[in-house]
Amino acid sequence: MSEIIELCRRAREASYALSAASRATKDAALHAMAAALRDNTEQIVTANAKDVAAAREAGTPESTVDRLALDPARVDAMAAGLEQLAGLVDPVGEVVRGYTLPNGLELRQVRVPFGVVGIIYEARPNVTADAAGICLKSGNAVLLRGSSSAAESNAAIVEVLRAAAAATGLPADVIQGVPGDRAAVKELMQARGLVDVLIPRGGAGLIQTVVSESTVPVIETGVGNCHVYVDSAADLDLALTILLNAKTQRPSVCNAAESLLVHAEVASEFLAKALPALVDAGVTVHGDAEVVAAGKDIESAADVVPATEEDYGKEYSSLDLSAAVVPSLEAAVEHIRRYSSSHTDAIITRSQAAARQFVQAVDSAAVVVNASTRFTDGGEFGFGAEIGISTQKLHARGPMGLPEMTSTKYIVIGDGQIRN
Amino acid sequence: MSEIIELCRRAREASYALSAASRATKDAALHAMAAALRDNTEQIVTANAKDVAAAREAGTPESTVDRLALDPARVDAMAAGLEQLAGLVDPVGEVVRGYTLPNGLELRQVRVPFGVVGIIYEARPNVTADAAGICLKSGNAVLLRGSSSAAESNAAIVEVLRAAAAATGLPADVIQGVPGDRAAVKELMQARGLVDVLIPRGGAGLIQTVVSESTVPVIETGVGNCHVYVDSAADLDLALTILLNAKTQRPSVCNAAESLLVHAEVASEFLAKALPALVDAGVTVHGDAEVVAAGKDIESAADVVPATEEDYGKEYSSLDLSAAVVPSLEAAVEHIRRYSSSHTDAIITRSQAAARQFVQAVDSAAVVVNASTRFTDGGEFGFGAEIGISTQKLHARGPMGLPEMTSTKYIVIGDGQIRN
Repeated sequence: MSEIIELCRRAREASYALSAASRATKDAALHAMAAALRDNTEQIVTANAKDVAAAREAGTPESTVDRLALDPARVDAMAAGLEQLAGLVDPVGEVVRGYTLPNGLELRQVRVPFGVVGIIYEARPNVTADAAGICLKSGNAVLLRGSSSAAESNAAIVEVLRAAAAATGLPADVIQGVPGDRAAVKELMQARGLVDVLIPRGGAGLIQTVVSESTVPVIETGVGNCHVYVDSAADLDLALTILLNAKTQRPSVCNAAESLLVHAEVASEFLAKALPALVDAGVTVHGDAEVVAAGKDIESAADVVPATEEDYGKEYSSLDLSAAVVPSLEAAVEHIRRYSSSHTDAIITRSQAAARQFVQAVDSAAVVVNASTRFTDGGEFGFGAEIGISTQKLHARGPMGLPEMTSTKYIVIGDGQIRN
Repeated sequence: MSEIIELCRRAREASYALSAASRATKDAALHAMAAALRDNTEQIVTANAKDVAAAREAGTPESTVDRLALDPARVDAMAAGLEQLAGLVDPVGEVVRGYTLPNGLELRQVRVPFGVVGIIYEARPNVTADAAGICLKSGNAVLLRGSSSAAESNAAIVEVLRAAAAATGLPADVIQGVPGDRAAVKELMQARGLVDVLIPRGGAGLIQTVVSESTVPVIETGVGNCHVYVDSAADLDLALTILLNAKTQRPSVCNAAESLLVHAEVASEFLAKALPALVDAGVTVHGDAEVVAAGKDIESAADVVPATEEDYGKEYSSLDLSAAVVPSLEAAVEHIRRYSSSHTDAIITRSQAAARQFVQAVDSAAVVVNASTRFTDGGEFGFGAEIGISTQKLHARGPMGLPEMTSTKYIVIGDGQIRN
């Protein structure tokens, strides 16, 4: 038996005890894990320093090094995250529906853990504690595969968390790191039957690899090519405030806006205000002919450039924005159907009819009316925790909190019912 | 563009109109489809006769031919099924959860259609009307791929249904048959992005093929290696009644029992009653040493044979039953974890503690206490319609009714909210 298969089997075995654990036991483990992180800050920061040194030596950009680096404050934040999880309702055991059948059978559909969850992720080592906590609280054994650039940090964090979980009476194997090279990851992705679900967290390349190479069911997360459509009936000042927030408040995240669509009727008025404001905020606008023409008259016209077809499909994750003028709401919907990653798309309008039509026709994880796209987030939605944002349609869509980390089973209680 | 891709694109296009259709429109279409099936009974039965003749010519067993054959009564039953669907609540638009966030954003999670669903199925042509109806009611365009042995029947049914849907104002392409050879099916299974979900309905071989060859997300259905565990605290008469029902009432279906586990404390008493009763009912028992020994004293001892390891993993779908004596409830759970297909497993016991422990520890789509396994069924569960029984953990588990044929999206309504 390979090392990975052995690891998966241990996770499965450990998952039985975890699925039977009470909320009290799981919350005690989360508090113990938080305390252990704080107690072992030095050990974790020392391990992290090796990863940081290796990254710098390899010429990694300083922004990536910053995401990788841990200090006592960041370790404390990881611990606080685990304590926050302990305060959330346990999803396991929730009765999703239930009634008594005509023959007297009592039927209940209840939430149960998946069993074994694999998380494949990049860069930030805080994901290690975060994902371990969410999986533990939802009753799932977890296999954690971080990026090799954070290997020392992740190994140190996993060791601390395992010891703390074991000290509260849970099997240490409810939390395991996945060692080895790409072949090991491949084996993990093919461990159908041993691993119940894989969740990739990271860039489009990672997600694409996991989706196409896995036989284990995958929950796709994260790629966001989000649109803001300014309707003919929009309050243009409101539209501009929202657009600037959606594009510039934190351009690197998946719920940031990447594309602006403007109804032709208000295009010249809106673009006359919006283009200088965007450019002032450091945004490069990749526009269609009308947008570029509107940009000719502004001071920094150089920052309004012609868009290629490719631009409209891009998740820039930077201060870039594609932009187009559309003749109608229907055309905006068609554009979004064609280019959107179906993460979050917004309409700005005062028209109830336009809002209703847009909300019906745009099939994205989140459809927003008169607000920033930046709210699509487990924290903002009030979930208390988030493992990622699903952009697929099966099982979970949008921000995934604790309930999305469970399956269900039917419990059927009778007193001798047979079928005729 | 290949014929299959073209078909998928037409389905996607048609799905937009269907997803916007009101319940009234969809119900009118279902009634029109039912009427059209009845009006075209002769055409359908004539087409079916060609399939039946070809099947007989190919030496197909008469039981399979019977499943393939349509007569006016069966066509009428298909029509009645569509009318029944019209009477069910529309899952689309159901608010799954909703609240107002602290910043005033109104958040709702609502059910929406998947978009395009592919159904790959075997034998019975009534599945064609059934699946088309369930998909239409849940707002999904459907691509129907039946077995080649029912090609004439399915083509006739699809033609009738398309015309009826079109006559009520929906695009005919909300229902399409998938023609072509295995390469065409392969292309369908790889149409990720164009097809939202694939549901295979049929034998283990078909399901395995679809699961392993698809890049489109799949909902696995149906294989049932179901257990009946007779606990030491069981009412043994009740246990026998339930066991006989679970095994013999309809042995060919997925919720029939395939394996008996008996607690050692009651084994000799129970087996002394159960083995003759099973054998009388025509069952061949594949038992472990203790079961075989218990069978030595009964009249038809020849029908109690030694089980191989393989027997315990089998879905017989026939009057065969594997059987073993276990030393404890824990051992029964371990056996079930090892061999069960996680479809439906039952415990017979008078002990509240044993029931609670079994229900917690057995992770199957349905866990039953003191009743037959045969109840795991959309009809019996009161769902009104069923597209299949999911034996996987993502998205849907157990019988899948109309709500399970939908995804959700978040609708976020604001009045200018931006993120700080």
